[in-house]
Amino acid sequence: VTVEVRPVEGLPEIRAGDDVGRLIYDATRPHPPGDGDVIVIAHKIVSKAEGRVVTATDRRPTSLTESARVLRRSGEMVISETRHGFVCANAGVDASNVEGEHVVLLPLDPDLSARRIRLRLRKLLGVELGIVISDTFGRPWRLGQTNVAIGTAGIEPFIDYRGMTDDFGTQLVATRICIADELAAAAELVMGKTARVPAAVVSGALVRFGRGSATEIVRPPSEDLFR
Amino acid sequence: VTVEVRPVEGLPEIRAGDDVGRLIYDATRPHPPGDGDVIVIAHKIVSKAEGRVVTATDRRPTSLTESARVLRRSGEMVISETRHGFVCANAGVDASNVEGEHVVLLPLDPDLSARRIRLRLRKLLGVELGIVISDTFGRPWRLGQTNVAIGTAGIEPFIDYRGMTDDFGTQLVATRICIADELAAAAELVMGKTARVPAAVVSGALVRFGRGSATEIVRPPSEDLFR
Repeated sequence: VTVEVRPVEGLPEIRAGDDVGRLIYDATRPHPPGDGDVIVIAHKIVSKAEGRVVTATDRRPTSLTESARVLRRSGEMVISETRHGFVCANAGVDASNVEGEHVVLLPLDPDLSARRIRLRLRKLLGVELGIVISDTFGRPWRLGQTNVAIGTAGIEPFIDYRGMTDDFGTQLVATRICIADELAAAAELVMGKTARVPAAVVSGALVRFGRGSATEIVRPPSEDLFR
Repeated sequence: VTVEVRPVEGLPEIRAGDDVGRLIYDATRPHPPGDGDVIVIAHKIVSKAEGRVVTATDRRPTSLTESARVLRRSGEMVISETRHGFVCANAGVDASNVEGEHVVLLPLDPDLSARRIRLRLRKLLGVELGIVISDTFGRPWRLGQTNVAIGTAGIEPFIDYRGMTDDFGTQLVATRICIADELAAAAELVMGKTARVPAAVVSGALVRFGRGSATEIVRPPSEDLFR
Protein backbone atom coordinates (compact mmCIF):
# COMPACT_ATOMS: atom_id res chain seq x y z
CA VAL A 1 0.00 0.00 0.00
CA THR A 2 1.34 3.44 -0.90
CA VAL A 3 1.20 6.11 1.79
CA GLU A 4 0.23 9.59 0.68
CA VAL A 5 0.97 12.81 2.57
CA ARG A 6 -0.99 15.78 1.27
CA PRO A 7 -0.50 19.35 2.49
CA VAL A 8 -3.54 21.27 3.75
CA GLU A 9 -3.13 24.57 1.97
CA GLY A 10 -4.93 27.89 2.10
CA LEU A 11 -5.71 27.99 5.82
CA PRO A 12 -6.14 31.58 7.03
CA GLU A 13 -4.08 33.11 9.84
CA ILE A 14 -5.62 31.54 12.94
CA ARG A 15 -7.08 33.72 15.72
CA ALA A 16 -8.35 32.94 19.21
CA GLY A 17 -11.73 31.25 19.05
CA ASP A 18 -11.30 29.90 15.51
CA ASP A 19 -12.80 26.49 14.74
CA VAL A 20 -9.74 24.57 13.51
CA GLY A 21 -11.76 21.50 12.48
CA ARG A 22 -14.09 23.62 10.38
CA LEU A 23 -11.19 25.53 8.79
CA ILE A 24 -9.46 22.28 7.86
CA TYR A 25 -12.72 21.00 6.44
CA ASP A 26 -13.07 24.13 4.31
CA ALA A 27 -9.42 24.05 3.20
CA THR A 28 -9.47 20.41 2.09
CA ARG A 29 -12.58 20.65 -0.09
CA PRO A 30 -13.09 19.36 -2.74
CA HIS A 31 -10.68 16.57 -1.70
CA PRO A 32 -11.59 15.98 1.94
CA PRO A 33 -9.83 13.43 4.18
CA GLY A 34 -11.24 9.93 3.80
CA ASP A 35 -12.04 7.11 6.20
CA GLY A 36 -8.91 5.97 8.02
CA ASP A 37 -6.81 9.02 7.18
CA VAL A 38 -4.76 10.78 9.83
CA ILE A 39 -4.59 14.57 9.95
CA VAL A 40 -1.41 15.97 11.44
CA ILE A 41 -1.80 19.53 12.71
CA ALA A 42 1.04 21.80 13.83
CA HIS A 43 0.28 22.71 17.44
CA LYS A 44 0.81 26.37 16.66
CA ILE A 45 -2.56 26.81 14.98
CA VAL A 46 -4.28 24.84 17.73
CA SER A 47 -2.61 26.99 20.40
CA LYS A 48 -3.58 30.18 18.60
CA ALA A 49 -7.20 29.03 18.27
CA GLU A 50 -7.21 28.23 21.98
CA GLY A 51 -5.81 31.65 22.89
CA ARG A 52 -2.51 30.22 24.12
CA VAL A 53 -0.59 33.30 23.02
CA VAL A 54 1.00 35.71 25.48
CA THR A 55 2.87 38.98 25.19
CA ALA A 56 6.60 38.64 25.69
CA THR A 57 9.64 40.36 24.27
CA ASP A 58 11.83 37.50 25.43
CA ARG A 59 10.58 33.93 25.54
CA ARG A 60 12.83 32.82 28.36
CA PRO A 61 10.74 33.96 31.35
CA THR A 62 7.68 32.39 29.72
CA SER A 63 9.60 29.17 29.10
CA LEU A 64 10.39 28.97 32.80
CA THR A 65 6.76 29.61 33.80
CA GLU A 66 5.64 26.87 31.42
CA SER A 67 8.15 24.37 32.82
CA ALA A 68 7.33 21.85 35.51
CA ARG A 69 11.04 21.21 35.96
CA VAL A 70 14.21 22.52 34.39
CA LEU A 71 16.61 19.74 33.38
CA ARG A 72 19.49 21.68 31.84
CA ARG A 73 20.40 25.23 30.87
CA SER A 74 22.79 26.14 28.10
CA GLY A 75 23.16 29.79 27.17
CA GLU A 76 19.78 31.14 26.08
CA MET A 77 18.27 27.66 25.95
CA VAL A 78 16.46 25.84 28.71
CA ILE A 79 15.76 22.11 28.43
CA SER A 80 12.79 21.42 30.62
CA GLU A 81 9.89 19.16 31.33
CA THR A 82 6.52 20.69 30.51
CA ARG A 83 3.46 20.15 32.66
CA HIS A 84 2.44 17.48 30.14
CA GLY A 85 5.69 15.61 30.82
CA PHE A 86 7.32 16.43 27.48
CA VAL A 87 11.05 17.12 27.62
CA CYS A 88 11.96 19.80 25.11
CA ALA A 89 13.70 23.12 24.59
CA ASN A 90 12.08 26.21 26.12
CA ALA A 91 9.00 24.24 27.25
CA GLY A 92 7.70 24.40 23.70
CA VAL A 93 7.33 28.19 23.87
CA ASP A 94 7.75 29.49 20.34
CA ALA A 95 8.40 33.00 19.08
CA SER A 96 8.20 32.29 15.35
CA ASN A 97 5.17 32.65 13.09
CA VAL A 98 3.32 34.88 15.53
CA GLU A 99 2.71 38.61 15.37
CA GLY A 100 5.08 41.10 16.97
CA GLU A 101 5.92 40.70 20.63
CA HIS A 102 4.04 37.50 21.30
CA VAL A 103 4.97 33.92 21.96
CA VAL A 104 2.88 30.80 21.45
CA LEU A 105 2.54 28.27 24.28
CA LEU A 106 1.67 24.58 23.94
CA PRO A 107 -2.03 23.71 24.24
CA LEU A 108 -3.02 23.03 27.86
CA ASP A 109 -4.17 19.49 26.99
CA PRO A 110 -3.13 18.57 23.44
CA ASP A 111 -4.90 15.18 23.61
CA LEU A 112 -8.15 16.95 24.45
CA SER A 113 -7.55 19.45 21.64
CA ALA A 114 -7.04 16.51 19.26
CA ARG A 115 -10.22 14.80 20.45
CA ARG A 116 -12.26 17.98 19.94
CA ILE A 117 -10.95 18.50 16.40
CA ARG A 118 -11.56 14.83 15.64
CA LEU A 119 -15.18 15.00 16.78
CA ARG A 120 -15.74 18.18 14.79
CA LEU A 121 -14.31 16.70 11.59
CA ARG A 122 -16.11 13.40 12.08
CA LYS A 123 -19.37 15.31 12.26
CA LEU A 124 -18.58 17.45 9.22
CA LEU A 125 -17.17 14.62 7.08
CA GLY A 126 -18.95 11.52 8.38
CA VAL A 127 -15.72 9.50 8.40
CA GLU A 128 -13.42 8.00 11.04
CA LEU A 129 -10.16 9.90 11.27
CA GLY A 130 -7.06 10.02 13.40
CA ILE A 131 -5.66 13.34 14.62
CA VAL A 132 -2.07 14.07 15.60
CA ILE A 133 -1.08 17.45 17.02
CA SER A 134 2.63 17.99 16.46
CA ASP A 135 5.57 20.06 17.56
CA THR A 136 9.24 19.97 16.56
CA PHE A 137 11.51 18.76 19.35
CA GLY A 138 15.28 18.43 19.50
CA ARG A 139 17.05 15.25 20.56
CA PRO A 140 19.92 14.94 23.04
CA TRP A 141 22.33 12.97 20.81
CA ARG A 142 21.20 13.96 17.35
CA LEU A 143 21.33 17.41 15.83
CA GLY A 144 18.30 19.05 14.28
CA GLN A 145 14.69 18.83 15.30
CA THR A 146 12.03 16.40 14.15
CA ASN A 147 8.28 16.69 14.28
CA VAL A 148 6.69 14.58 17.06
CA ALA A 149 3.20 13.95 18.40
CA ILE A 150 2.16 15.95 21.47
CA GLY A 151 -1.54 15.13 21.17
CA THR A 152 -3.44 12.32 19.47
CA ALA A 153 -7.03 11.20 19.00
CA GLY A 154 -8.52 8.20 17.29
CA ILE A 155 -5.28 6.24 16.94
CA GLU A 156 -3.04 4.05 19.05
CA PRO A 157 0.30 5.90 19.36
CA PHE A 158 2.29 2.66 19.20
CA ILE A 159 2.46 -0.36 16.96
CA ASP A 160 3.40 -3.08 19.36
CA TYR A 161 5.38 -6.00 17.98
CA ARG A 162 6.27 -7.43 21.39
CA GLY A 163 5.48 -11.11 21.56
CA MET A 164 5.21 -11.39 17.78
CA THR A 165 7.65 -13.50 15.79
CA ASP A 166 9.73 -12.52 12.79
CA ASP A 167 10.05 -14.43 9.50
CA PHE A 168 12.49 -16.85 11.16
CA GLY A 169 10.25 -17.57 14.13
CA THR A 170 12.33 -15.51 16.56
CA GLN A 171 10.32 -13.50 19.06
CA LEU A 172 10.56 -9.76 18.54
CA VAL A 173 11.44 -8.83 22.10
CA ALA A 174 11.29 -5.10 22.62
CA THR A 175 10.01 -3.56 19.45
CA ARG A 176 7.34 -0.99 19.89
CA ILE A 177 7.20 1.62 17.16
CA CYS A 178 5.93 5.09 18.01
CA ILE A 179 3.82 5.45 14.90
CA ALA A 180 2.31 8.72 16.16
CA ASP A 181 5.74 10.36 16.05
CA GLU A 182 6.43 8.86 12.64
CA LEU A 183 3.15 10.24 11.30
CA ALA A 184 4.15 13.66 12.62
CA ALA A 185 7.57 13.32 10.98
CA ALA A 186 6.05 12.26 7.66
CA ALA A 187 3.73 15.30 7.71
CA GLU A 188 6.73 17.61 8.11
CA LEU A 189 7.90 16.45 4.65
CA VAL A 190 5.14 18.61 3.14
CA MET A 191 4.87 21.29 5.82
CA GLY A 192 8.13 23.19 5.93
CA LYS A 193 8.51 26.06 8.37
CA THR A 194 7.95 29.24 6.45
CA ALA A 195 5.38 27.96 3.98
CA ARG A 196 1.88 28.32 5.30
CA VAL A 197 1.13 24.60 5.55
CA PRO A 198 0.26 23.92 9.18
CA ALA A 199 -1.49 20.61 8.54
CA ALA A 200 -1.24 17.51 6.36
CA VAL A 201 -3.41 14.50 5.60
CA VAL A 202 -1.72 11.07 5.73
CA SER A 203 -3.48 8.21 3.92
CA GLY A 204 -2.63 4.52 3.87
CA ALA A 205 -0.27 4.33 6.87
CA LEU A 206 0.11 1.19 8.98
CA VAL A 207 -1.81 2.75 11.86
CA ARG A 208 -4.20 1.17 14.30
CA PHE A 209 -7.30 3.15 15.18
CA GLY A 210 -8.25 3.26 18.84
CA ARG A 211 -8.42 5.37 21.95
CA GLY A 212 -4.75 6.03 22.58
CA SER A 213 -3.35 9.36 23.68
CA ALA A 214 0.00 11.10 23.37
CA THR A 215 0.45 11.13 27.15
CA GLU A 216 1.18 7.41 26.77
CA ILE A 217 4.31 8.36 24.83
CA VAL A 218 5.84 10.16 27.82
CA ARG A 219 8.38 7.85 29.44
CA PRO A 220 7.66 7.67 33.17
CA PRO A 221 10.41 9.42 35.15
CA SER A 222 10.96 6.16 37.06
CA GLU A 223 12.14 4.52 33.79
CA ASP A 224 14.22 7.48 32.69
CA LEU A 225 17.94 6.77 32.64
CA PHE A 226 19.05 10.22 31.50
CA ARG A 227 17.20 12.89 33.47
CA VAL B 1 3.03 18.81 -3.57
CA THR B 2 1.89 15.42 -2.35
CA VAL B 3 4.55 13.13 -0.89
CA GLU B 4 4.29 9.46 -1.77
CA VAL B 5 5.88 6.61 0.16
CA ARG B 6 5.90 3.33 -1.76
CA PRO B 7 7.03 0.02 -0.30
CA VAL B 8 9.71 -1.96 -2.15
CA GLU B 9 8.23 -5.43 -2.14
CA GLY B 10 9.46 -8.83 -3.23
CA LEU B 11 13.11 -8.51 -2.23
CA PRO B 12 14.67 -11.92 -1.57
CA GLU B 13 16.32 -12.89 1.72
CA ILE B 14 19.65 -11.02 1.55
CA ARG B 15 22.96 -12.93 1.81
CA ALA B 16 26.56 -11.78 2.14
CA GLY B 17 27.84 -10.41 -1.15
CA ASP B 18 24.42 -9.51 -2.54
CA ASP B 19 24.14 -6.38 -4.67
CA VAL B 20 21.47 -4.41 -2.78
CA GLY B 21 21.25 -1.68 -5.44
CA ARG B 22 20.64 -4.24 -8.17
CA LEU B 23 18.07 -6.11 -6.07
CA ILE B 24 16.16 -2.88 -5.38
CA TYR B 25 16.33 -2.07 -9.09
CA ASP B 26 14.87 -5.48 -9.93
CA ALA B 27 12.20 -5.26 -7.22
CA THR B 28 10.94 -1.82 -8.26
CA ARG B 29 10.46 -2.60 -11.95
CA PRO B 30 8.27 -1.73 -13.78
CA HIS B 31 7.84 1.36 -11.56
CA PRO B 32 11.43 2.38 -10.79
CA PRO B 33 12.35 5.33 -8.58
CA GLY B 34 12.39 8.63 -10.47
CA ASP B 35 14.64 11.66 -10.48
CA GLY B 36 14.71 13.29 -7.03
CA ASP B 37 13.24 10.33 -5.15
CA VAL B 38 14.78 9.12 -1.90
CA ILE B 39 15.11 5.40 -1.19
CA VAL B 40 15.07 4.49 2.48
CA ILE B 41 16.68 1.10 3.19
CA ALA B 42 16.54 -0.74 6.51
CA HIS B 43 20.15 -1.23 7.57
CA LYS B 44 19.52 -4.90 8.19
CA ILE B 45 19.64 -5.85 4.52
CA VAL B 46 22.70 -3.66 3.98
CA SER B 47 24.45 -5.28 6.94
CA LYS B 48 23.57 -8.75 5.70
CA ALA B 49 24.87 -7.97 2.20
CA GLU B 50 28.09 -6.67 3.77
CA GLY B 51 28.51 -9.81 5.86
CA ARG B 52 27.95 -7.96 9.14
CA VAL B 53 26.34 -11.00 10.77
CA VAL B 54 27.99 -12.91 13.61
CA THR B 55 27.17 -16.03 15.56
CA ALA B 56 25.86 -15.32 19.03
CA THR B 57 23.37 -16.98 21.31
CA ASP B 58 23.13 -13.81 23.39
CA ARG B 59 23.48 -10.38 21.86
CA ARG B 60 24.84 -8.71 24.96
CA PRO B 61 28.54 -9.60 24.60
CA THR B 62 28.38 -8.52 20.94
CA SER B 63 26.68 -5.26 21.95
CA LEU B 64 29.54 -4.50 24.27
CA THR B 65 32.16 -5.29 21.61
CA GLU B 66 30.34 -3.00 19.18
CA SER B 67 30.20 -0.14 21.70
CA ALA B 68 32.76 2.64 21.83
CA ARG B 69 31.38 3.65 25.23
CA VAL B 70 28.63 2.39 27.50
CA LEU B 71 26.39 5.20 28.78
CA ARG B 72 23.86 3.31 30.90
CA ARG B 73 22.89 -0.23 31.75
CA SER B 74 19.42 -1.33 32.74
CA GLY B 75 18.72 -5.02 33.13
CA GLU B 76 19.47 -6.78 29.85
CA MET B 77 19.75 -3.49 27.98
CA VAL B 78 22.86 -1.48 27.36
CA ILE B 79 22.63 2.11 26.11
CA SER B 80 25.87 2.85 24.39
CA GLU B 81 27.65 4.94 21.85
CA THR B 82 28.61 3.04 18.71
CA ARG B 83 31.89 3.61 16.90
CA HIS B 84 29.93 5.84 14.51
CA GLY B 85 28.84 8.05 17.43
CA PHE B 86 25.21 6.91 17.48
CA VAL B 87 23.67 6.55 20.92
CA CYS B 88 21.24 3.62 20.96
CA ALA B 89 20.28 0.42 22.72
CA ASN B 90 22.64 -2.53 22.38
CA ALA B 91 24.88 -0.69 19.90
CA GLY B 92 22.35 -1.45 17.18
CA VAL B 93 23.01 -5.20 17.45
CA ASP B 94 19.82 -6.93 16.42
CA ALA B 95 18.70 -10.52 16.88
CA SER B 96 15.44 -10.32 14.93
CA ASN B 97 14.87 -11.23 11.29
CA VAL B 98 18.06 -13.26 11.07
CA GLU B 99 18.52 -17.02 10.96
CA GLY B 100 19.08 -19.06 14.09
CA GLU B 101 21.86 -18.10 16.44
CA HIS B 102 23.05 -15.01 14.65
CA VAL B 103 22.91 -11.29 15.28
CA VAL B 104 23.16 -8.46 12.79
CA LEU B 105 25.59 -5.60 13.40
CA LEU B 106 25.39 -2.08 11.99
CA PRO B 107 27.29 -1.47 8.75
CA LEU B 108 30.89 -0.39 9.41
CA ASP B 109 30.36 2.88 7.52
CA PRO B 110 26.67 3.40 6.70
CA ASP B 111 27.36 6.63 4.77
CA LEU B 112 29.76 4.72 2.53
CA SER B 113 27.20 1.94 2.11
CA ALA B 114 24.63 4.55 1.10
CA ARG B 115 27.01 6.15 -1.40
CA ARG B 116 27.76 2.77 -3.00
CA ILE B 117 24.09 1.89 -3.37
CA ARG B 118 23.38 5.34 -4.76
CA LEU B 119 26.09 5.06 -7.40
CA ARG B 120 24.86 1.60 -8.36
CA LEU B 121 21.24 2.74 -8.74
CA ARG B 122 22.24 5.90 -10.55
CA LYS B 123 24.08 3.80 -13.10
CA LEU B 124 21.20 1.34 -13.49
CA LEU B 125 18.42 3.95 -13.59
CA GLY B 126 20.13 7.03 -14.98
CA VAL B 127 18.48 9.31 -12.40
CA GLU B 128 19.63 11.33 -9.38
CA LEU B 129 18.47 9.74 -6.14
CA GLY B 130 18.92 10.17 -2.42
CA ILE B 131 19.63 7.17 -0.20
CA VAL B 132 18.89 6.86 3.52
CA ILE B 133 19.97 3.80 5.48
CA SER B 134 17.80 3.49 8.57
CA ASP B 135 17.58 1.85 11.95
CA THR B 136 14.98 2.10 14.72
CA PHE B 137 16.29 3.86 17.83
CA GLY B 138 14.65 4.50 21.19
CA ARG B 139 14.50 7.93 22.79
CA PRO B 140 15.33 8.80 26.39
CA TRP B 141 12.10 10.64 27.24
CA ARG B 142 9.64 9.11 24.83
CA LEU B 143 8.52 5.52 24.72
CA GLY B 144 8.70 3.44 21.57
CA GLN B 145 11.25 3.51 18.82
CA THR B 146 11.27 5.51 15.62
CA ASN B 147 13.15 4.95 12.41
CA VAL B 148 16.15 7.27 11.98
CA ALA B 149 18.91 7.80 9.42
CA ILE B 150 22.27 6.15 10.14
CA GLY B 151 23.65 6.62 6.62
CA THR B 152 22.80 9.00 3.80
CA ALA B 153 23.96 9.75 0.28
CA GLY B 154 22.91 12.38 -2.22
CA ILE B 155 20.91 14.52 0.22
CA GLU B 156 21.56 17.14 2.85
CA PRO B 157 20.44 15.63 6.20
CA PHE B 158 19.10 18.97 7.45
CA ILE B 159 16.80 21.66 6.19
CA ASP B 160 18.26 24.75 7.72
CA TYR B 161 15.90 27.61 8.46
CA ARG B 162 18.36 29.56 10.57
CA GLY B 163 18.58 33.15 9.42
CA MET B 164 15.34 32.88 7.45
CA THR B 165 12.29 34.89 8.44
CA ASP B 166 8.76 33.69 9.08
CA ASP B 167 5.55 35.13 7.60
CA PHE B 168 5.69 37.97 10.16
CA GLY B 169 9.28 38.91 9.40
CA THR B 170 10.63 37.39 12.63
CA GLN B 171 13.94 35.59 12.26
CA LEU B 172 13.68 31.83 12.75
CA VAL B 173 16.46 31.46 15.26
CA ALA B 174 17.31 27.85 15.90
CA THR B 175 15.24 25.78 13.54
CA ARG B 176 17.08 23.10 11.70
CA ILE B 177 14.95 20.13 10.72
CA CYS B 178 16.58 16.71 10.45
CA ILE B 179 14.83 15.76 7.23
CA ALA B 180 16.92 12.58 6.91
CA ASP B 181 15.37 11.23 10.12
CA GLU B 182 11.91 12.30 8.97
CA LEU B 183 12.35 10.49 5.66
CA ALA B 184 13.35 7.37 7.60
CA ALA B 185 10.28 7.77 9.84
CA ALA B 186 7.97 8.24 6.86
CA ALA B 187 9.33 5.07 5.25
CA GLU B 188 8.48 3.08 8.38
CA LEU B 189 4.81 3.85 7.70
CA VAL B 190 4.93 1.29 4.87
CA MET B 191 7.63 -1.02 6.22
CA GLY B 192 6.38 -2.62 9.38
CA LYS B 193 8.58 -5.07 11.22
CA THR B 194 7.44 -8.55 10.33
CA ALA B 195 6.37 -7.84 6.75
CA ARG B 196 9.18 -8.28 4.29
CA VAL B 197 9.41 -4.64 3.25
CA PRO B 198 12.97 -3.53 4.02
CA ALA B 199 12.94 -0.49 1.73
CA ALA B 200 10.65 2.29 0.55
CA VAL B 201 10.73 4.98 -2.11
CA VAL B 202 9.78 8.52 -1.03
CA SER B 203 8.75 10.96 -3.79
CA GLY B 204 8.03 14.67 -3.56
CA ALA B 205 9.55 15.45 -0.14
CA LEU B 206 10.99 18.87 0.72
CA VAL B 207 14.54 17.56 0.54
CA ARG B 208 17.67 19.26 -0.71
CA PHE B 209 20.04 17.16 -2.76
CA GLY B 210 23.71 17.49 -1.94
CA ARG B 211 26.73 15.81 -0.42
CA GLY B 212 25.63 15.54 3.20
CA SER B 213 26.22 12.51 5.39
CA ALA B 214 24.54 11.02 8.44
CA THR B 215 27.66 11.52 10.54
CA GLU B 216 26.69 15.22 10.51
CA ILE B 217 23.60 14.27 12.54
CA VAL B 218 25.68 13.02 15.47
CA ARG B 219 25.73 15.73 18.14
CA PRO B 220 29.35 16.35 19.17
CA PRO B 221 29.99 15.12 22.73
CA SER B 222 31.12 18.66 23.61
CA GLU B 223 27.56 19.92 22.97
CA ASP B 224 25.87 16.99 24.70
CA LEU B 225 24.05 18.01 27.89
CA PHE B 226 22.81 14.55 28.81
CA ARG B 227 25.61 12.03 28.42
